[in-house]
Amino acid sequence: MSTMPMERHQLGDEESAALAGLAARIRELAEAAVVTGTGAAEAAAVADEVAALTARLSERRHDAPPYRMSGEAVLDRATGNPVTGALNPLAPPVVLTAGPDGVVRGEFTLGHLYEGPPTYVHGGVSAMVLDQALGMAAAVSGTPGMTATLETRYRRPTPLGVPLTVEAKRSRVEGRKVYASGTISGPDGRVTVEATAMFIMPDRFVAAGE
Amino acid sequence: MSTMPMERHQLGDEESAALAGLAARIRELAEAAVVTGTGAAEAAAVADEVAALTARLSERRHDAPPYRMSGEAVLDRATGNPVTGALNPLAPPVVLTAGPDGVVRGEFTLGHLYEGPPTYVHGGVSAMVLDQALGMAAAVSGTPGMTATLETRYRRPTPLGVPLTVEAKRSRVEGRKVYASGTISGPDGRVTVEATAMFIMPDRFVAAGE
Repeated sequence: MSTMPMERHQLGDEESAALAGLAARIRELAEAAVVTGTGAAEAAAVADEVAALTARLSERRHDAPPYRMSGEAVLDRATGNPVTGALNPLAPPVVLTAGPDGVVRGEFTLGHLYEGPPTYVHGGVSAMVLDQALGMAAAVSGTPGMTATLETRYRRPTPLGVPLTVEAKRSRVEGRKVYASGTISGPDGRVTVEATAMFIMPDRFVAAGE
Repeated sequence: MSTMPMERHQLGDEESAALAGLAARIRELAEAAVVTGTGAAEAAAVADEVAALTARLSERRHDAPPYRMSGEAVLDRATGNPVTGALNPLAPPVVLTAGPDGVVRGEFTLGHLYEGPPTYVHGGVSAMVLDQALGMAAAVSGTPGMTATLETRYRRPTPLGVPLTVEAKRSRVEGRKVYASGTISGPDGRVTVEATAMFIMPDRFVAAGE
């Protein structure tokens, strides 16, 4: 998960900060767009301006999202990741950190863009956040892998607009199979969603562990 | 799922089209931002312009995303939905339609913003799309509900940048429990991800069906 494909552009600190700022502003624009009460004419005018900015950004472009190499605390170098990536305007982003006990943890708040049932988080969004956290729990324990199965159980609705916590931990390893489990909790500490997942390790990690 | 909370702003056709166009332009901007090769200075300059557009859209805003009321073919009135919503810049969006056999189907392509493992779709994104499609399959069969469990099985990596197909169908109903299953397939027709889900019907639908 934290390996870097050799062909990816590697970001330095200054470029990384500027692009993270740009992604944050686009996230705010997306949120404003989904609740705007502006009329059709103004929406169309703003859309034209947005298209002009897209043209500016597209004058020079990479074939794929960049990776970040610097920084000790970087859990995931995939800055374009749709859950954790600071450079991805679609990502909340959820900042995940790993404790010495191997528990991966993050706090995050989801706004209007992530709504499923009225006023609640979309069930698929919760599944997406958990897939990422469980995958990182497997990776920080030295056994990264591709998701093979993900099972998500919804205990109660997850509210929008309040601080949520995600936690995940590797539970066991059986040959190439790595199991992890985790939860999303509301501000009252009650679990809203639970998940378990199984990941399959690439050959090179299985060999390295034997 | 297709019920409309009374407090939501109801969109007419003209406003809906303009806001969908705006969301499409912001989607393109987000994609351009995650692969841009522009320098830090230009990224910061564009970010300032984006912030100015956000301020314009925020002059008048609703408390929550609007719903769309018109149009016979509207499967889901939640235009802000993060999977299907034309007004949500985070949504691909996946346009789902229901056949006379109750099968919900959609074709879609996922770009750089949805990347998990290098060049492949993030496993959590696939889970999110399937949650939505399975939920709609339950709803179009007259038995809508909230997701209680979602189990996703990854058969092979799902490629980015090529046409994908999602299909879902209700399998059975047991009291308030509604079961559905579905798949995502690649352009060669091979299934990449399978899912099954169980939804819990609200009381009013259980009563209506008895």
